[in-house]
Formats: sequence, C-alpha cells, structure tokens
Amino acid sequence: MIEKASAYIDANKARFIEELGEFLRFPSISSQSAHVSDVRDCALWLRNHLESIGLQARLIESGGHPVVEATRLGKSAGRSNRKLILYGHYDVQPVDSSDQWQSPPFVATIRDGFIYGRGATDDKGQLFAHVKAVESLIRTCGQLPCDVRFLIEGEEESGGTSLQDYVKGEKVRLTTDAVVISDTAMYDERTPAITYGLRGLLGMEVTVRVANRDLHSGAFGGAIGNPGVALAQIIAACMGPDGNVLIPGFYDQVRPLEDWEKQNVRQLGFDESKLLSEVGSSAGFGEKGHPALERMWARPTFDVNGLIGGYTGKGIKTVIPSRASAKISMRLVPDQEPQKVFELVTQHIKSKCPPFARVEIEGPSSATPPVLFDVSNPAIQVAKEALKFGFGAEPVFIRCGGSIPVANTFWRELQKPVVLMGFGLDSDGAHSSNERFKIESFINGAKTSAYFIEAFGTQ
Amino acid sequence: MIEKASAYIDANKARFIEELGEFLRFPSISSQSAHVSDVRDCALWLRNHLESIGLQARLIESGGHPVVEATRLGKSAGRSNRKLILYGHYDVQPVDSSDQWQSPPFVATIRDGFIYGRGATDDKGQLFAHVKAVESLIRTCGQLPCDVRFLIEGEEESGGTSLQDYVKGEKVRLTTDAVVISDTAMYDERTPAITYGLRGLLGMEVTVRVANRDLHSGAFGGAIGNPGVALAQIIAACMGPDGNVLIPGFYDQVRPLEDWEKQNVRQLGFDESKLLSEVGSSAGFGEKGHPALERMWARPTFDVNGLIGGYTGKGIKTVIPSRASAKISMRLVPDQEPQKVFELVTQHIKSKCPPFARVEIEGPSSATPPVLFDVSNPAIQVAKEALKFGFGAEPVFIRCGGSIPVANTFWRELQKPVVLMGFGLDSDGAHSSNERFKIESFINGAKTSAYFIEAFGTQ
Repeated sequence: MIEKASAYIDANKARFIEELGEFLRFPSISSQSAHVSDVRDCALWLRNHLESIGLQARLIESGGHPVVEATRLGKSAGRSNRKLILYGHYDVQPVDSSDQWQSPPFVATIRDGFIYGRGATDDKGQLFAHVKAVESLIRTCGQLPCDVRFLIEGEEESGGTSLQDYVKGEKVRLTTDAVVISDTAMYDERTPAITYGLRGLLGMEVTVRVANRDLHSGAFGGAIGNPGVALAQIIAACMGPDGNVLIPGFYDQVRPLEDWEKQNVRQLGFDESKLLSEVGSSAGFGEKGHPALERMWARPTFDVNGLIGGYTGKGIKTVIPSRASAKISMRLVPDQEPQKVFELVTQHIKSKCPPFARVEIEGPSSATPPVLFDVSNPAIQVAKEALKFGFGAEPVFIRCGGSIPVANTFWRELQKPVVLMGFGLDSDGAHSSNERFKIESFINGAKTSAYFIEAFGTQ
Repeated sequence: MIEKASAYIDANKARFIEELGEFLRFPSISSQSAHVSDVRDCALWLRNHLESIGLQARLIESGGHPVVEATRLGKSAGRSNRKLILYGHYDVQPVDSSDQWQSPPFVATIRDGFIYGRGATDDKGQLFAHVKAVESLIRTCGQLPCDVRFLIEGEEESGGTSLQDYVKGEKVRLTTDAVVISDTAMYDERTPAITYGLRGLLGMEVTVRVANRDLHSGAFGGAIGNPGVALAQIIAACMGPDGNVLIPGFYDQVRPLEDWEKQNVRQLGFDESKLLSEVGSSAGFGEKGHPALERMWARPTFDVNGLIGGYTGKGIKTVIPSRASAKISMRLVPDQEPQKVFELVTQHIKSKCPPFARVEIEGPSSATPPVLFDVSNPAIQVAKEALKFGFGAEPVFIRCGGSIPVANTFWRELQKPVVLMGFGLDSDGAHSSNERFKIESFINGAKTSAYFIEAFGTQ
C-alpha cells in the first residue's frame, strides 16, 4: 500500500510543487488588518483544494480568521476506525519593508532545490505535505485506513485562539486517537526529529513607583529613591551573575532529565560555539553543569523582554522618574506549574523591593504549562518508523525550548498523544526574509505522512 | 541714601508691578523655534527698558538667542569704582497643553498678593527686582555707587551657552568684584536665603549588548544571556539597597560638612515627612547618618534617569532583546571631579558586566563641577545684611542640590564671589502651571538689591 502511495508522490512531484506555489501566492498575513480578505481567500482556496482531493471541507467562522476543517472517514472493516487529527496553519508572518527578499515573497520561486516564499516552511509547505499524503492514499487505495480530520487555523502567527476555543468547545465530537503537528524543525539537514517536549511560558509586568511625578534629580536626589535603581535591584535579586534564578522554590518542581535523555543530549553533540557565533554573542551563558541543549530544552529561564522608564530621548534629562517597568517572562519546564511559579516570583519580587518604592505586578499573562510526551507511546513509535521511511535516516528525539499553545490544548483537551514531526530546517528563514522549504523535505514529508497514516490506521 | 531708594520703591510699587506685567507678556520660550521672534521682542523690550532708566544697553548676538547687556558706570570719588555684575534670564519655560492655568500664562494677573504668569518667578520677576533697584538708586541719588553690568541671557531654559561663551571670551573686559544671581529660592516664606553651594553633574549612557538581533526567548533562552538582566546587575552593583553608592573610590573626594554647616542643617529643622508626602513617596531614602538636607545638598547621588530595551508595547513579546540601555547621572559634591568620577564609574561598570554581555559607555556628558563659596566672603556678608534689610528677617545659608552652570562659569572665569540671593519660593510653580511671584517678595527683593548695591559699592 505505502509503496503505491510513495510511487504516486514521486510521479506527481511536479504538480505538487506547482500546487504548493499556488498556496504560497496568498499574502495570508493574519496580524495585519489590510490582509483580512487575503487570509479568507487563502482559506477558501484550501477548502476547495481539500474537497477536490476527496474530503468534506468547511470554514469554521469565529470572531477572527476562519479555521479550515476537512474530514474523511476511513474504511470500516468490522471494527471502528482509529481517528487522526492533522494540524497546520495557513496564515503567515508579515513581510517587513526592511526584509531583503531575493524574489517576491508571494511569488513562489524555485532555486537550488528549494521553494522560496513567505510561508514556505511555516507552515504552508509542511501542512501541504500532509495534504498530498492524504491525496496519495485516497488515489492509490481508494480509501483511507483511518478517519482523518484536518484542523487548519489562520491565527497562529497573530496569537488568535479561535481553533483552541473550537477544540475546547467540541472536544467530545473531536475525539481522536492522536494529533499530528508539523510546525517544528528537523534536528539538522540529514536528521529528522520528533519533538517530545515543549517548554511552558509565564509572563508578567513589574512596575516600580516612587513618586507621583518625575522629579528634578538636583532638588530631590539623595532624599527620594530612584525607581530605575529599585527595578534593577529587584531583577538582579531574581537572577545571579552565573545564570541561576535566585527565586526561592523556583527549581523545586523542575524534573531532571532521565538517563536516556542525558545520553541523547550527549550523542546529539550540539555545537554551542557555532550558535554563539551565529547570533554574535561573545560568550556563553547559563547554569553550570547543564549542557546547552539541556539549558534550552529542559531548564527554566528568567528573561527581561522589555525595560522602560523615565527619559529615553536624545541627550540628558536629569529626572528621577516616577516609575520604571520591566516585562518579564519565564520559560517553564516539567513539572513547573505557571500559577505556582507566578506566586513564588511575586512573593520574591515584593520582598526584594526596597522600602522607598512600591511594586505592582501585572499577570500572569500567556501562562502556558510545559508539556512532555512519553516517547514510548505507540503513535510516537509509528512516527519514528514513518520518518525513517520518508527521510531514509534514523530520527532523533528532541525537545523544543519554545511553547506551542495549540499542542497544549490538544494534549489537555483530547488527552491523546500529540506527535510533533518537523519537516523544516532552522535555516529555512521562518519569520525572516527569503523563507524557503527544501523540495526534497516536502516530498519526504509527504511520504512520511502517508506511511504514518497507513501504519497508524492499521495499528 | 538707601532710605530714599527704599521710599522710592514703595512709592512706585504700582508702576513697577505694571511694568513687570508688560515684561511677562512676552512668550519668550527659548526652547521652541516657533517663539524665536517672541524671544527677540522680549530682549528688545528689555534693552529699551534698561536704556529708559539710564543704562547703556545692547543685544549681544550669537548663534542662539541674544544676550542683553546693560552697563552704567558709578560715581568716581577719587578711587576706581568697584564693579558688579547682575545676572538674570529673560527666557521662560514652555507652557504644556496639559498645564492647568487659572489665568492665561502670558497675561499677568494679580490675585491674593501674587502676580501670576509664565516667568513670574523664573526669572523675569527676580531679575526685574534688580532692574527696579538700579532705577531707584539712579533716580534718588543721581548716580550709582559702583559700576553695574547686567548680563541677561535668553537661553537659560534651553541649555544654550551663548552667555557662557561670551563670559569665557571676554573675561578680561568683564572683570568684576562680584556677581549676583537671583534665580534660586528663599528657604521658606519668611526666611530669605543665600545659596553658598551647588552640586555638580555628570551624565553617561550605558548600553549592554548581547546578540546581533532580538532573539526568540523560547529557542535561545538558557543559552544566550539577557542584556536587560545584565544591565540590572550592573546598576544594582553601583547602588546598594540602603542608598550607598558601591563604586570603589566614589566617596573619596567628598568633603564632609564643616561643623557650622552641621549645626546649620540641624537648626533649619527640615521636615522630611512633609517632602515625602508632597511627592507621594511612601518612605524615605538615602544614606544612613546624614540628615535629608545634607543628603540633598552635600552628598553625591547616583540616579537612573531613563531605561530602555526590548519590547515596550502592549502585551507580551517573548524576545531576548539585543541590547538594553540606561541613562545615568550623578550629582557631585565638593571636591569630586567629574572626569575622575567618570573614570571610576566606567571602570566599575566594566568590571561588573557579566561575561556574556558587552558594555559600552557614552560620556561624560553635562560634566559640571560642584561649587562651594566661602560664606565669610565680604560680598556674601553684604548680601546677608541686604536680605535682612529687604525682608526684615535674618537670612539663612543654604546649599542647592542642583547645578547652575552659569554660576560655575562666572566663578571659574572671573574668579570673584558669586552671590546667589533667591527671592522666589519653592511653591511659586517655576516650570509648572500657575507660576507666580509674591508681590511682597518683588518689592522686598528690589529693596534688598538697592541695599546690596549701595553697601557693596561703598565697601
């Protein structure tokens, strides 16, 4: 069965690329109101395309951009079918005028084995690999081995929650056996990867106030404290010079790496100096005793995302500002709970605020728990075989330092394995200029998906 | 002699107030280009007025707003005259649309014994008291007891240096025996004051960089350090929680208060809790063992005037900013030298920058040395008698926590006593809305000035 589907993918490669080019043509920039109708046009094109390959498709309307839902029941051979959800997003990042595109971002262009265009890897190309896999199975077998449901959102790049709300509201009807998400990356050009863990997130804003107005630093300096200094003292009391978070209890719930993970991190042999040189950083950073991959995947962080206070124009203005603020966020790891960490941080910050100042904390915001999937889960083991088939190389297990809120939602609401199979590359330029997707990865991804659906459906 | 002048002042009070009202009519806002011709009109009015009372007056043109210079030689009774420079500024602060003026800022209005209008106290009213004193002496005695030179600038509120450049360039011709500046305040409503010390100033900008661009805190957090955290650690390493500056050597050149000054501070009995409540501050701040007045007058400070870095818009953006900056300034006290302190601070900051970050320091800016005048100087002793005569109360000696660059220039270039006699009140609303000047202070100021000129000239 999979041989036929795989042969079909090879035979139709040129057409698949052309169709992906059509999909990339839409400037479906969800964060810009000028593109509302482009986003909708893209959703309609996708719905029509999914119908054309044999699915029932519709737009789910919400306050924001529509979700495209497409379903097809699998064969029913005496037992009820297994059910699979395939996730993707059809919206894309904006294109800044400062970006240096070598070809127009919304005209798909083939160069050196890559297809270039905004959304090529994030996420139209990766999603389309699944679409073409489903087509291939239908065309070559006449039916699917399991019930397939595409849930494709148009708000991933703009922080919308229409799809998450839909999943929460319809979780009984959406009952599934697994969810597949392809919105991550391979470990490197040769090595496909399954992401089995995501860090969580916790945001807050800390504002320190001293006086009811900006004060003249000559008249008042020495008698009235400075909120910028107080804020600095608070932040410095949260993180030590060697990258350790100093908040009591902060690490209490952190689950150490298991032995196989430590070995995995060692084997992957991440090149930290290459990373530092790529971002222009002069020296490494982080907790002693934890290799870089562990620090990025499985250790919590404390970051200042923004700082503001007082006079920030040209030259000098000798004020004691009335207040100063910091936007702070933390990446959380299993088994840290956002609410609990928020309380610890709040208490610590309040205790470290000098007596002359008053501190206000706004939050928690963007509270997202970390997730960790059991790699021994059968669906993940099937994904491993599928990637080996599609890419001809043994996949590795990795974690991701970021957060994918929709993965959390699927996991928590549907309580079934979420499989993060990435077909992209870190060098694909997602969110940057000259975004691209390797055509070989597109084809290998389609084969991987076909294998997965086949094997998962017959498990 | 002084009795006649004093009687003349009383007799002409109504006219003096009317003339001050005319002077206040000009929106001579030096920092706003829309008011360039208003500033010039005001300078011309002032020149004409000074000529009308019997001085030779002219505008000194520079790149910026003109300086008004007016001179009159005193009587010469066998010995060469003593020489006196009277300083003032005819430019005013802007009027913000947010200001809450009860009467139009450029229509002088009398209410409850005050004259209201922008510039009433800062500095048109205080300056005009000296102008009217000179008129009174000329009218009642036919001549002045010393050579008088007004130097009245139009760039005090906009940081211009035309007058300072003029003084530096013409210091031989401007040779004097003393300079009087009335651009400060009385100690309180009943107590006139002579300011005998000014703090200096030192500004710098500290920028911490980590990466060549803003980075995703999920992907990089844990491996790449945060410039906001590094900046906070640097600032916290400069100032301890109890208000002590932690920079090695920072206090080495600080001259302690003399015994008479300590006693003076005790006798003045400054009400710190009133200050805190007025600015809306919940608790006091500053070095232990130094009363509030000493901290504001004679102890150096370390202030963050502005902070900026990363994302400062609404909501959350999970970046590790590429850089973060702080505008920092210090008030310096005798005998601290700005350049030396700048070097100490620079060295300390560099040593406290965590290894993952790079720190850049811009500065020194606005470097102004502190000044301290010897209160036993005869000119200052004459000022004491003059204030006692004019205000009917014993004046006190105070220092000022701010810096008056022109006072520095006069002191350093002309090497003669600078007498800071303030006729204004802290509650006059300088730089704020409903600026006013007490009419009684205006009249008492004129009498003080007449007494001073008379006594100084015959010393």
